[in-house]
Amino acid sequence: MSTTLIPNNTLITDTPEEGRALAIKIARLVIKTTQPDEAVRIQLRDVYANDAMMLIQIGHVVALEFATIAAANNYWRKA
Amino acid sequence: MSTTLIPNNTLITDTPEEGRALAIKIARLVIKTTQPDEAVRIQLRDVYANDAMMLIQIGHVVALEFATIAAANNYWRKA
Amino acid sequence: MSTTLIPNNTLITDTPEEGRALAIKIARLVIKTTQPDEAVRIQLRDVYANDAMMLIQIGHVVALEFATIAAANNYWRKA
Amino acid sequence: MSTTLIPNNTLITDTPEEGRALAIKIARLVIKTTQPDEAVRIQLRDVYANDAMMLIQIGHVVALEFATIAAANNYWRKA
Amino acid sequence: MSTTLIPNNTLITDTPEEGRALAIKIARLVIKTTQPDEAVRIQLRDVYANDAMMLIQIGHVVALEFATIAAANNYWRKA
Amino acid sequence: MSTTLIPNNTLITDTPEEGRALAIKIARLVIKTTQPDEAVRIQLRDVYANDAMMLIQIGHVVALEFATIAAANNYWRKA
Repeated sequence: MSTTLIPNNTLITDTPEEGRALAIKIARLVIKTTQPDEAVRIQLRDVYANDAMMLIQIGHVVALEFATIAAANNYWRKA
Repeated sequence: MSTTLIPNNTLITDTPEEGRALAIKIARLVIKTTQPDEAVRIQLRDVYANDAMMLIQIGHVVALEFATIAAANNYWRKA
Repeated sequence: MSTTLIPNNTLITDTPEEGRALAIKIARLVIKTTQPDEAVRIQLRDVYANDAMMLIQIGHVVALEFATIAAANNYWRKA
Repeated sequence: MSTTLIPNNTLITDTPEEGRALAIKIARLVIKTTQPDEAVRIQLRDVYANDAMMLIQIGHVVALEFATIAAANNYWRKA
Repeated sequence: MSTTLIPNNTLITDTPEEGRALAIKIARLVIKTTQPDEAVRIQLRDVYANDAMMLIQIGHVVALEFATIAAANNYWRKA
Repeated sequence: MSTTLIPNNTLITDTPEEGRALAIKIARLVIKTTQPDEAVRIQLRDVYANDAMMLIQIGHVVALEFATIAAANNYWRKA
């Protein structure tokens, strides 16, 4: 079974909060595709969750994914 | 209780100053979601607040989040 | 035989899921062009797939490629 | 007294030169907010001002902030 | 003789494939301008072509150059 | 005498080649502003010009500056 890269196959969300959650999810799904072994991923999670620089870089990737999702949703301006 | 990722669930702010503060907040909330243990986060804060490269990288992430928020607000051009 | 950099020579895809897969593919094809020796690439894959920081950085590159592909497809808004 | 994040609370400047200066200023103000202790900041400045990689990364952050400010000003096209 | 930074002095290409090739070329020409000594560049190529993190970062730069070229070409939507 | 951050105080150039040269120039001027001591800069230049990762990162910053300049010039589409 292949990994789904974009849940529900859409970038459109009802709210910024849901858009942000989607940004985090799709960032994680790229990692999952690149390292499909769950045991390895769990071990690495313990590494990055305790490393200041890695946490900052995770924030960086989420910011980028969110920029795309926010643009897709016209920044939820009317919401 | 789940962490709120976007305070007030909107990217719209009255001013650039508030938009910048929001950029810093949402960057921090991603870290909080990734490392929910407050004790660990406090310890890591002491690391990055005293490390020149990490401070620069934090500035990098805030710049990205702010780019999205500024676009959402049409750069507050009429403000 | 030269490496193809953009499969099917288009950025247009039917869905976000296919766009995301394309982002991953074109990111990999740049690596392939820069390091054409498959044996070396396989060895390096073993390195980055087990390194938390490198996995995050791969996620970063995919996010960027995806931003371009998503814009090309007008974010699949009508899909 | 809280740190001001955006001087004059606007991204609009008369010229590209002023926009660039603003980019440098707002990048620094994020650092100041994250590390409010001036003595520490002065010590870290001595570190990054003599480190080639950190200087490059500072240039990176300024480039990003400037991209936002330039867009806000429609690239000063009529100036 | 000065290095040409943008081959043919245009960002417009017929296809995405050619746009991608241009992205790789202009990224390399900046390196060439910064380090004009070919012997040094050949030596460094041996370094980065065998280093997973550097290959990822090269992919990062190409992604950014390509984003600009793709926008310049309106994403080759009618092609 | 203060450093000029944007030569000629404009982002508009006649050609992509000139826009690229401007991107390199404004990236360097940020470094100059951050490290005004020319002797230190010359020493650091020797460091980054011989370091593969730093050269890649310089390419990264130039790519970002160029993205802004290219947008300012509407990608020189009619040129």
